[in-house]
Amino acid sequence: MSFHQRLKSVWETKNSLVCVGIDPELSRLPEHLLDHKEAYLDFGIGIVDACAPYVSAFKPQAAHFAAVGAEDQLAKLISYIQKSYPELPVILDAKRGDIGSTAALYAKEAFERYGADAVTVNPYLGHDSLAPYFEYSDQGVIVLCRTSNPGGNWIQGVRVGEEPLYLTVAQQVREWDLNDQCMLVTGATYPDELGQVRKTVGNMPLLVPGVGAQGGDVEAVLKAGVDSSGQGLCISSSRGILYAGSGRDFAEKAGEAAMKLRDEINRYR
Amino acid sequence: MSFHQRLKSVWETKNSLVCVGIDPELSRLPEHLLDHKEAYLDFGIGIVDACAPYVSAFKPQAAHFAAVGAEDQLAKLISYIQKSYPELPVILDAKRGDIGSTAALYAKEAFERYGADAVTVNPYLGHDSLAPYFEYSDQGVIVLCRTSNPGGNWIQGVRVGEEPLYLTVAQQVREWDLNDQCMLVTGATYPDELGQVRKTVGNMPLLVPGVGAQGGDVEAVLKAGVDSSGQGLCISSSRGILYAGSGRDFAEKAGEAAMKLRDEINRYR
Repeated sequence: MSFHQRLKSVWETKNSLVCVGIDPELSRLPEHLLDHKEAYLDFGIGIVDACAPYVSAFKPQAAHFAAVGAEDQLAKLISYIQKSYPELPVILDAKRGDIGSTAALYAKEAFERYGADAVTVNPYLGHDSLAPYFEYSDQGVIVLCRTSNPGGNWIQGVRVGEEPLYLTVAQQVREWDLNDQCMLVTGATYPDELGQVRKTVGNMPLLVPGVGAQGGDVEAVLKAGVDSSGQGLCISSSRGILYAGSGRDFAEKAGEAAMKLRDEINRYR
Repeated sequence: MSFHQRLKSVWETKNSLVCVGIDPELSRLPEHLLDHKEAYLDFGIGIVDACAPYVSAFKPQAAHFAAVGAEDQLAKLISYIQKSYPELPVILDAKRGDIGSTAALYAKEAFERYGADAVTVNPYLGHDSLAPYFEYSDQGVIVLCRTSNPGGNWIQGVRVGEEPLYLTVAQQVREWDLNDQCMLVTGATYPDELGQVRKTVGNMPLLVPGVGAQGGDVEAVLKAGVDSSGQGLCISSSRGILYAGSGRDFAEKAGEAAMKLRDEINRYR
């Protein structure tokens, strides 16, 4: 089954376009977890179990684990999600980008070491830097297009002829995607640009970070971004869900926030 | 001491512009190391000790360690280099790029977890994605500009007005560099573009991968790339040095290859 088919299937069975970003930070963990030997893993498992009924994907973020040397906990968390919720794809948010021979090793890191279902990548080094990921033809390859941060426009908004560069990226990735495995990252904070990307790529699924803590507007994202079947989006929230509560009820609060986001999204589909 | 001053100092004391990229691959390790518990670390230490007399920097590449879950060995190797050869900066080649709050964690990974002296980063997400690195004002921040791979030109060569995008990146990074800490990655495989970057950035140091296995021409790189004092370059070779030998004499052969590259470079300065 292609990665696109897999997403379509989970969007339908779960009736949810929500993706929960798992970005643990020591300074924001509930206090009772701080003396756990694997606090990030235990936090992640709590979040995953509480949110799983309401979401269609999880997106652990690599830097949060790497900054504190917790790669083992990241690997265990991914493995836990896949065993417990095999229908839910795990997107490793790593944003790697390197020349081909090194990209092959980053692809190995994502798809073999961690066994992720998809990985985010950076297009600045061109096609030969993405090709090694495409060889894992059942896995998702999610290319940065128009990111959610204000500074992103500096390069991404450069005019190429009549169009901004991010639309060139979108068009090109669509052409490169021979296995129905590619997605594009388009921030919720720029719904007009998101709409332009949607027009450019047909029904290619989009990963949309930036609702919640970053301030993206859900209604605007849905209006601009859904595909022809009212799906096509992985709308990702991290901090707004992870830290909805801060005590022993952190998981319960996160689950409620995920359910609320799912319902808000579904109102506009 | 600023990172630029530190480089100038080591270029002079070592009379070398050579940087050795440490890219261990299981399939290319000398056979006698394969049963070592920490084969990447032992390989790296052998290379470092043999090459140290002839080089002015080391550049371990993160993916090579991450693909096999050997982050601990990467940390130990960096620590070994810094204790044994404190004059030689260690560049962590990671090419990270993410929004500001996440970039802060990648900066923490590079500069606190690994204690690297410099890190490579990707400019596609703009200034706010680089700012967290700049806060480590004594450390080097090495921004991808015109990479050594053929596909790089796709985005990097886009015209912005009269100029290719990589020159816009070069000019802008020069303006952002308030701490004399930035460098640019400009591949040896495109010496004309390297020359354009040199004209754009004055005496900013450049990290130049792509001599050796990738085929970059040393004479052309030197003619196009040196600064006004005949320095200004970290010319990086990985595979051409690491795998100069394949047996028990791998370190000795690597040292000879590093010395040879140093001398070849110095002929053209």
